[in-house]
Formats: sequence, structure tokens, C-alpha cells
Amino acid sequence: MGIVRVVSLSDPEILNYHGKLLEGIIPGITTESRCINDQPKGVYDENSKSEAALKVVNLIRVFSNYVDVLIVSCTEDPGVKEAREVSKVPVIGAGRASASLSLFYGDDIGVLGLGEEPPQPIREVLRDRIKVYRGLNKGTTVDLFTPDGRDKALRAALEVCRSKVDCLLLGCTGFTTINLYRELKYKVAIPVIDPIIASGLIALYEVGMR
Amino acid sequence: MGIVRVVSLSDPEILNYHGKLLEGIIPGITTESRCINDQPKGVYDENSKSEAALKVVNLIRVFSNYVDVLIVSCTEDPGVKEAREVSKVPVIGAGRASASLSLFYGDDIGVLGLGEEPPQPIREVLRDRIKVYRGLNKGTTVDLFTPDGRDKALRAALEVCRSKVDCLLLGCTGFTTINLYRELKYKVAIPVIDPIIASGLIALYEVGMR
Repeated sequence: MGIVRVVSLSDPEILNYHGKLLEGIIPGITTESRCINDQPKGVYDENSKSEAALKVVNLIRVFSNYVDVLIVSCTEDPGVKEAREVSKVPVIGAGRASASLSLFYGDDIGVLGLGEEPPQPIREVLRDRIKVYRGLNKGTTVDLFTPDGRDKALRAALEVCRSKVDCLLLGCTGFTTINLYRELKYKVAIPVIDPIIASGLIALYEVGMR
Repeated sequence: MGIVRVVSLSDPEILNYHGKLLEGIIPGITTESRCINDQPKGVYDENSKSEAALKVVNLIRVFSNYVDVLIVSCTEDPGVKEAREVSKVPVIGAGRASASLSLFYGDDIGVLGLGEEPPQPIREVLRDRIKVYRGLNKGTTVDLFTPDGRDKALRAALEVCRSKVDCLLLGCTGFTTINLYRELKYKVAIPVIDPIIASGLIALYEVGMR
């Protein structure tokens, strides 16, 4: 499985982290991760989203020669539709993948995100089933990596879980990077949807269906 | 993974077929299948559904001691909610699992089923996103096993795929038993959602999340 990180990363451990997580959960797969250039804060507004979309498409044009399936690791699914036109393999966007999976758990979904509103693919799939949304004050994925950012995320997640929802959808793959899902699973009683793990399962479906 | 077949089956090859299919697609898992008693036609109306629900719950009460996760192999999800109360492990219903996965592929879903309307869990998840529904004249899962039944199913599936839908959801696990998905994948250009494979992925998610 190829993982497209939609944030510029130089530390190979952080770059490969989402892939390594998937390798731990889905037996028998291997992953390779690549990232887009010159976008150290990832996707955080419309501008950064359209810049990222172009870069994702260009990256996938080449990357798709070397893998069986591709995951775009960003819940805004930047460039996913366009990348499908140039990719030799299926392309999974983390937004639509995680939102679809969340509906297995019920109709009242709680979403945690970064911006003022949930990522577009999540809104498209869930519509009025987003019962609660909490955004972290227009933060970026980088803000999550500070102790303060991490703490804020954890508190907001717990707050969503205390409202009456069937599951908590982590609406940014930055939450995967700070391992929020693992921390939450010992603290809350409802299912928590991690966008990368959800994407990995759809990727497995795509590969298995061939 | 434990598979609950919601139809009485004595041939071990047919009994184990859904599980073997999953073992072929999800590396590293093993499955065990059990079926309910005295219900050779499976679920085909409200009466047979409530009878099945009781039997599923009783079966799972014991079966859940021996597996990590359970799949109820029927898209009506009979007894799934009640079984969760008595089960020691997560219980996945094929209806809700497959309907959720189908939304990854778009908003216009084509559904193939047996009865006059789509199974209830599929209606609950998809709502107005069921763009086309084709039912096989109130047939039962057993009717699919005749050459005529199989042929009818294939023709109806192709008809749904010809309408403008983003994917075809096979809304009965009997279609898995006759291998309809495999046949279709060479004949149609849109994704086909098999309810058992979809359930297996959610089951993997549940196990991976522990």
C-alpha cells in the first residue's frame, strides 16, 4: 500500500508512521510512504487544499507505478478525484473512507476536526448525521504536535464522547500521528474511528476485490 | 472470526463457504462457521426474520466464547442488536456493514435484493441514496442455488449496473454463496460490494482496534 502524506515531512519515522500503524493492524501488508513538497503545515484552508491537490495528483502519477493501492492521508481528500484519472491503482481518500465506516456504528456521529467545520468529504457522506462537531480553533496539523495542542485535542475528543453520539470520528489524520485513537480507547466507551485505519481497510477491500 | 449463517445448512462446504472466502481475502485470519436450526429457507419475510433473530441470539450466547469477533451473515441483521447484549465479542451485521462501505464509492447506490424492498439496515443507512433497487420477486436464498435463480440474479445485477449508479450493493449474502461478485467483476465497470467481504473488513477493524 502506498501512503501519500499531505504534509511535508523530513523525519522518516514521522513520514512512515501511518504506514507502520497499518502494517500492525492488517496482517501481511507492507507500506511505502511519500509526502508532498513545500507544505510543512499540510492542509488548513481552501488555498492550502488546492495547492495540495495539485501536488497529490503529480505525486500519484509516478507513485502509482510502484504500489497496489494508494491512500491519501488527509480527510479533505485533496486531489483524490483527479488523481483517480491518472493513477494506475485505486486511490482512497481518508475523509470519505472514515466517514463511510463511521455509519456502521450508528446515525449520530460526533466529529473532531481542526477547522471551523468538518472536512468536506465527511460532510458529504454524513450530512445531517453529524450530531456534534468540535474544531480546534482553525489549528493546523502541526499544532497537534505540541503538548498544548495534544492536550486540547484530547479534551475536545472527550467532550464529544460525553455528548450522546454513537461513535467519535477523528476528522484529521494528524490525530493518527499523535496516537489519539490509542489514548482514547482506554478512556471512552464508544467506538473511535481513526481515518488511517479506516482507509487501510478500504484499501484492503480494493486489493482483495481484484 | 466466527460466522453465523442465518440459514440451516448441513453441507460443511456450503456452511464454511463465506468464512473460506474471507480467509482468502484477509491474510492471517481463520474462521469458524455455525448455522441456526430448522430454517432451511433462511430469512425471507418478517416472520422468518424474527424467528431467526431469536436463534441468532441463542447461538451467539455460546459461540462468542470461542471467537474474537462475530459476523451475522444476513443483510437483515437479525438479532444483531440483541446479540450484542449477550455476546462477549463484537457482533457485525452484514446489512449495516455493506451499506456503510458502499457510501465510500458515492451517493447513488444500486441495490440488488430478494424481496420487494431493500433489507431494513440497508434502508436505514442509505436512505434516499438508494437510487435503484431490484428485488428478485420475493425469492428466498435457496432459489438462488438453481440455474434459473442464478441466471435471474445475474441479469438483474447487470440491469442495475447499467443504470447510473456509483456502485452495486449485493443486498443478500446468498449472492456471496453463488459467487455473484466474482462473476460480476469481469462484466461490469463499477465497484460491486459483497456483504460478506464488507463484514469481514469491519470485523478486522474491530479486532485491530482492541
